[in-house]
Amino acid sequence: MALKVYADRMSQPSRAVLIFCKVNGIDFEEILVDISKNQQFSPEYKAINPMHQVPAIVDGRFKLFESHAILIYICCAFPGVASHWYPSDLIKRAKIHSVLDWHHLNLRRGSAGIVANILMANIDGHRSYPQVVNQAEGILLKSLSKLENFWLKDGRFLVGGSQPSIADISLVCEIMELELLSEKDHDRILSPFKKVVQWIEDTKIATSPHFDEVHGILFKAQKRFRERMKTQSNLKAKL
Amino acid sequence: MALKVYADRMSQPSRAVLIFCKVNGIDFEEILVDISKNQQFSPEYKAINPMHQVPAIVDGRFKLFESHAILIYICCAFPGVASHWYPSDLIKRAKIHSVLDWHHLNLRRGSAGIVANILMANIDGHRSYPQVVNQAEGILLKSLSKLENFWLKDGRFLVGGSQPSIADISLVCEIMELELLSEKDHDRILSPFKKVVQWIEDTKIATSPHFDEVHGILFKAQKRFRERMKTQSNLKAKL
Repeated sequence: MALKVYADRMSQPSRAVLIFCKVNGIDFEEILVDISKNQQFSPEYKAINPMHQVPAIVDGRFKLFESHAILIYICCAFPGVASHWYPSDLIKRAKIHSVLDWHHLNLRRGSAGIVANILMANIDGHRSYPQVVNQAEGILLKSLSKLENFWLKDGRFLVGGSQPSIADISLVCEIMELELLSEKDHDRILSPFKKVVQWIEDTKIATSPHFDEVHGILFKAQKRFRERMKTQSNLKAKL
Repeated sequence: MALKVYADRMSQPSRAVLIFCKVNGIDFEEILVDISKNQQFSPEYKAINPMHQVPAIVDGRFKLFESHAILIYICCAFPGVASHWYPSDLIKRAKIHSVLDWHHLNLRRGSAGIVANILMANIDGHRSYPQVVNQAEGILLKSLSKLENFWLKDGRFLVGGSQPSIADISLVCEIMELELLSEKDHDRILSPFKKVVQWIEDTKIATSPHFDEVHGILFKAQKRFRERMKTQSNLKAKL
């Protein structure tokens, strides 16, 4: 029985797991848990992941959630996965754990915070909380600076070397959320970080063509959001 | 050269690493990085951990930060560590990664949020943000409920079985932060979760006498804080 991956491609950790499985030729079945329809709260999915989040996997009778744990499990349980994704070398592995742990309360917190707030304010007409956006942007910029000046100081990828690890896929998928901002905001935030921009490109290339294929839904959403933002701002200009 | 552990016992992940090293008889040197004196921002410590957080370790020439990554590294690099702390069994190990990842954005976020806010408001006369406290308490109660009804459903410890893993030490040290609240708040929050309360006791016993010894500074702070809260509330009653 093939591995089952429960995912919504609009979720960045879901995309990370899907891209990883595709790049490594894992035999898996993708099962959509549509967040926009609140399917993560269904009783069926609660039996898979009681935390109501995507992604989750089922491998035989074993159920697992949390994308970093999933990526590590697949690296160890599927013999075909190349060793650079999660090297057995103690020090390299420790660095991967360190950057993945750091990610939770830094890059993820900054990126998810700013995207959720700016989008809600621009698209759904929700109240904007400038204090929340400013705080999230502060965390995001600090995280990008740490990526630029610390994590990427030893090479093209996070743990050094010329090939990516699971940490590169996870963090780049997170940063891809910024594609949902306006082009102006996206470029203002990312363009000062030259190494980060190059690393995103390098990770895309290393996981091609699956990276762009899995992100297809994000690019469609980007187009839709940017058009709506333009209409909203034209309307405001006329008032 | 012994392992160096840079820590402040007032930090919950620092305590987790220190207790773990002591329980396992690791030859290590504890180096205080006094957060109350902002020593985590000193140039010397920046060279150890550029993220300015504790704990961090130096093992020979290898520097590492993020407490979960440190615990995993010590389990793998020091042959004397008993296997139950980080079993080599793929499924048990995956569950440990899953609960440690879950911890970051759930239990840690709730516990640290509520303790920081209530303490600042009660002790330092900072403005209290009821919205922030309520949100953090919501996250904390939800996390405690998941511990009670999901994580602890299979046994005395998080990954089942009769012996603790690194996840038990890490999460119990986090919950110990609640000792800094008033007795009333502490009991109101924790007492409905019978399994959680028993699990804290079981983890203390499994890591005795090091658990209480390393938490000594926290109990001293608790006494100080609770006395000050009492004085403040007496003063308010007189006004």
